[in-house]
Amino acid sequence: MVSPSKIVKILEDLVRIPYYGLYGKSVSNELIIESDEEGAPHIYLYSLVDGSKKKLTSEPIYSTATPPDTPVNRVVYTRDVSRGKELQQIFYYDLTRNTEDKLVEMDPIRIFGLTDAIEYIAFTGATSKGVFLYKVKGHSLEELVKLPGFGIVYMARGSLIVGTGSLSGDPKTWDLMIYDLSSNELKTYHPKPETINKPLTIIDREIVFETNAFDPNRNVLVKLNIDTMELDELKFKHRDYEEIKPVEHSYCRYIDNEWFVIGRKEGRSKLFIDGKLVETPPGSLGGLVKLDNKIYMTYSSLKKPSTIIELDLGNGMYREIMGGKLPEEYRDSFGEVEFTYIKSSDGLEIPTYIVESRLAKKPGPTVVYVHGGPWSEVADSWRTMISALILTGFHVVAPNFRGSTGYGSEFMKLDIGDPGGGDLEDVAAASRYAVESGLANKLFIMGYSYGGYMTLWALTNKPDLYEAGVAGASVVDWEEMYELSDALFREFIKTLFNNKMDMLKERSPISKIKNLKKPLCIVHPQNDTRTPLKPVLRLMDKLLELGHSFEAHIVPDMGHAINTIDDALKILLPAILFLEKHK
Amino acid sequence: MVSPSKIVKILEDLVRIPYYGLYGKSVSNELIIESDEEGAPHIYLYSLVDGSKKKLTSEPIYSTATPPDTPVNRVVYTRDVSRGKELQQIFYYDLTRNTEDKLVEMDPIRIFGLTDAIEYIAFTGATSKGVFLYKVKGHSLEELVKLPGFGIVYMARGSLIVGTGSLSGDPKTWDLMIYDLSSNELKTYHPKPETINKPLTIIDREIVFETNAFDPNRNVLVKLNIDTMELDELKFKHRDYEEIKPVEHSYCRYIDNEWFVIGRKEGRSKLFIDGKLVETPPGSLGGLVKLDNKIYMTYSSLKKPSTIIELDLGNGMYREIMGGKLPEEYRDSFGEVEFTYIKSSDGLEIPTYIVESRLAKKPGPTVVYVHGGPWSEVADSWRTMISALILTGFHVVAPNFRGSTGYGSEFMKLDIGDPGGGDLEDVAAASRYAVESGLANKLFIMGYSYGGYMTLWALTNKPDLYEAGVAGASVVDWEEMYELSDALFREFIKTLFNNKMDMLKERSPISKIKNLKKPLCIVHPQNDTRTPLKPVLRLMDKLLELGHSFEAHIVPDMGHAINTIDDALKILLPAILFLEKHK
Repeated sequence: MVSPSKIVKILEDLVRIPYYGLYGKSVSNELIIESDEEGAPHIYLYSLVDGSKKKLTSEPIYSTATPPDTPVNRVVYTRDVSRGKELQQIFYYDLTRNTEDKLVEMDPIRIFGLTDAIEYIAFTGATSKGVFLYKVKGHSLEELVKLPGFGIVYMARGSLIVGTGSLSGDPKTWDLMIYDLSSNELKTYHPKPETINKPLTIIDREIVFETNAFDPNRNVLVKLNIDTMELDELKFKHRDYEEIKPVEHSYCRYIDNEWFVIGRKEGRSKLFIDGKLVETPPGSLGGLVKLDNKIYMTYSSLKKPSTIIELDLGNGMYREIMGGKLPEEYRDSFGEVEFTYIKSSDGLEIPTYIVESRLAKKPGPTVVYVHGGPWSEVADSWRTMISALILTGFHVVAPNFRGSTGYGSEFMKLDIGDPGGGDLEDVAAASRYAVESGLANKLFIMGYSYGGYMTLWALTNKPDLYEAGVAGASVVDWEEMYELSDALFREFIKTLFNNKMDMLKERSPISKIKNLKKPLCIVHPQNDTRTPLKPVLRLMDKLLELGHSFEAHIVPDMGHAINTIDDALKILLPAILFLEKHK
Repeated sequence: MVSPSKIVKILEDLVRIPYYGLYGKSVSNELIIESDEEGAPHIYLYSLVDGSKKKLTSEPIYSTATPPDTPVNRVVYTRDVSRGKELQQIFYYDLTRNTEDKLVEMDPIRIFGLTDAIEYIAFTGATSKGVFLYKVKGHSLEELVKLPGFGIVYMARGSLIVGTGSLSGDPKTWDLMIYDLSSNELKTYHPKPETINKPLTIIDREIVFETNAFDPNRNVLVKLNIDTMELDELKFKHRDYEEIKPVEHSYCRYIDNEWFVIGRKEGRSKLFIDGKLVETPPGSLGGLVKLDNKIYMTYSSLKKPSTIIELDLGNGMYREIMGGKLPEEYRDSFGEVEFTYIKSSDGLEIPTYIVESRLAKKPGPTVVYVHGGPWSEVADSWRTMISALILTGFHVVAPNFRGSTGYGSEFMKLDIGDPGGGDLEDVAAASRYAVESGLANKLFIMGYSYGGYMTLWALTNKPDLYEAGVAGASVVDWEEMYELSDALFREFIKTLFNNKMDMLKERSPISKIKNLKKPLCIVHPQNDTRTPLKPVLRLMDKLLELGHSFEAHIVPDMGHAINTIDDALKILLPAILFLEKHK
């Protein structure tokens, strides 16, 4: 039994561990870093010469742009100006003048893909009217095109703005989205129907992207010449890449005549330079900035908070230049981290991370942690929610159910047209495995966003499997969510359900809520514009009518994303106190 | 700035301080005590010989009966069998056989007045159909009468069952309710119209009660002979009582040929034996059990948790025989406790307790704490909510607005027909006084039940006065509350509003919610059957629509009453964290 004050102490210590992200490098060879070390995300300039750090932003930021690969003299980012409703404006910090300014006068809008191409800035934004592609040149905004579906800008170089999205009417086909400024044309491209294609970089008129078009088991790297529409495999000098066969890719750039690729496989990252594997610690890598003969990346694992590491390409030596530290007293709480495949009801193998808590007996209380998305994953990277469970004495089982990323786009596509179907069976299979394997004697379920949906859905469809559940920022009613959504999330729902709109009702927890048997804890941000609170209030009303036990916590002035340590604590605290009570 | 973990630690320590209540004495001269020292209310047998304590009840109890004055061989109490909905069943512990049993087979019902008359048990209970007076003889239940209004049993002796209530159709007249078992008749009695009459004890065929019929400034003690209907003033041997003139009375019994009276004045108790003042520490006394030449009472003050004290009538010496202790480290946090009268907008003097926190600057953050009821008060007695504020660095101003008890029934009656009218002005006057007197530089408002109502009401009617407010178990919509209420609370609402049912809408916070300007924290029990959650959910929906910042915490499986230390923590924790954030 962990006392409430001990729980709060643990969670306070935990949420205060900062994350670090790499934005890029400045013209004066400094690193540009994003971190919440002051409680909310800010941008810092880090001098590699004297290790000094300077905060650039006056107010917390919401998101940053994909920067150019070259050294920058400005940093581009957005701010949520709507108390969590994700309506943003674009700001920039001028590194030469040391000034911060609004980039362009515009109505706040949902921005979800933003890139700085030096000569201009491109972004995708959504209103109730549609999803649009915009360009900002100087300080003037231009609407380039209304997208025929759901698309996200990823990068822009020269005359090309590229992204990905379901743009040709088929939810199972995610095209390369290409806007050519030289012809002012929106082009979409997919090598084959029913393939997922995601851009990684642009070199002149060539777009490098990953696709599941050529191998059902992994996404391969290809390049498309936008003028000839010729498609080629990306080839490297060294053979390691081909032998290891990464399944997905989080980074790919051609720098100083070499390919730098971060590939991913089974939730872990591998760094390749021109196809040659570079030894890195097990876990997840991100970012990557090259400065002279050194590269900088972010690194974390399920046991290790995010850090920025420096790799000297000359001698292969590593150095951690900054990082969040798990306080000493908690380090022993983490037991084994196991990656395994669990057979689902239809035989599909579900890649699953299992983290044991040394504070729990075995078998002991176990939380099935369901990630959000659904197009996301629990990888071997730091996750505050999982750590919170470990440090308060729960084992954690985190299934990467069908639909998850990280295992190739064929696997990811399995959720399209069937959310709450096969994926629910996968979660249930992982839950049963937790008991059968001797890990769990009491099962709980918890998740945020799509994970919150899955929590409610599992509690109503498998009502005897869990002792209790915590549904964070959950989807309660897909139909009402659709009604309340802007164009982006309408397109998202249509894509996820493969346009089968009659499934929305049938797959909504509210329509099965009378099956609920076990205690439920609802945690929800007030101003959530992705999974809105309104249907959750209706669910509470229904639970009240049914006389069903529930607790609920509504977090004020907060949106879907957990951006500040204050909000993180407000989400985690009731969740953990609730689980502890039912432990 | 107090950290969340420090706040939880303080609150944990605070809610763990037990309360002690005196039930009576056993036939073998032991004290029968009620306490939550094990986390929830239980009954204990305390030996005065060896100081041993034995827990009698197997499960937590909800309420106890008014016992007979003679030594008992059973203890009668109820249990909530409805997860907080206050539907109860009656149990008893047989001290001779050491067994616990259900007293009578009956459907769970709201029981709100229960007394053990040895030969039988009487109680008032409410369903949706009405308020009824019941008798249990042996193990069989008899419905004696349906009450023509709102009445509460207080005591039964021999053939008389007495109580008080608005039974003659006029909400401003609270009759003595007398059920005579010798004639099977319900009688009501009031010396004058528009008077409040509350029974205190029965001696044979005489009922001793307090009434405001003869002095507008205080309730005097009188006795009524139920056969002759003759009314007499209660006279004592000694003169102290007459000189001190207590305003209300919490205890009056004739024991061993002497009158034992606990009178109350300005929130403090005075003990009189046959009119002679007995020195007691400043604060509140309750209970009173006489055993040989000793009396036992409960005692507490705003600075001192409840204790049971023993007074040796032979030598006048006191002894604390058990009590909750405020941990040493917190004792210095309590500053001055001041009692004062604050002039309201219409000149009425509002008796107010002011407690300073030594952890706050002066002027500093100050919470206007509004008590529930409205027919209740903040007296000089221990109150966890006020202590929680003091220990986390808030000064507290607790106005006993018009309608409060403790200042004579004329004062109490001022709220009838005007809830949210004059009382709001009183609360506002106390708030302004807090600033003008140099105590407060930031004002907050907080209350539970009627105090939660007043918080919402003040935030919507005086939207600039406070920085933020915490509304616990509040009334959001009197009309919907009336619809959802059982007969007892319908009668309560009719009485409170003096039958002016068109005022219900006009005095409901939900109808003025668009005026709200400041952050609001809502804390509400899920299964509250007095101030139901349903309209609160509707309020949240409205706040969401208006885009107004609010946070909300719904406590599961909990009713209106805060009975366990777990529930106390769940109510207090979000409240204090919220206030701290806005401090």
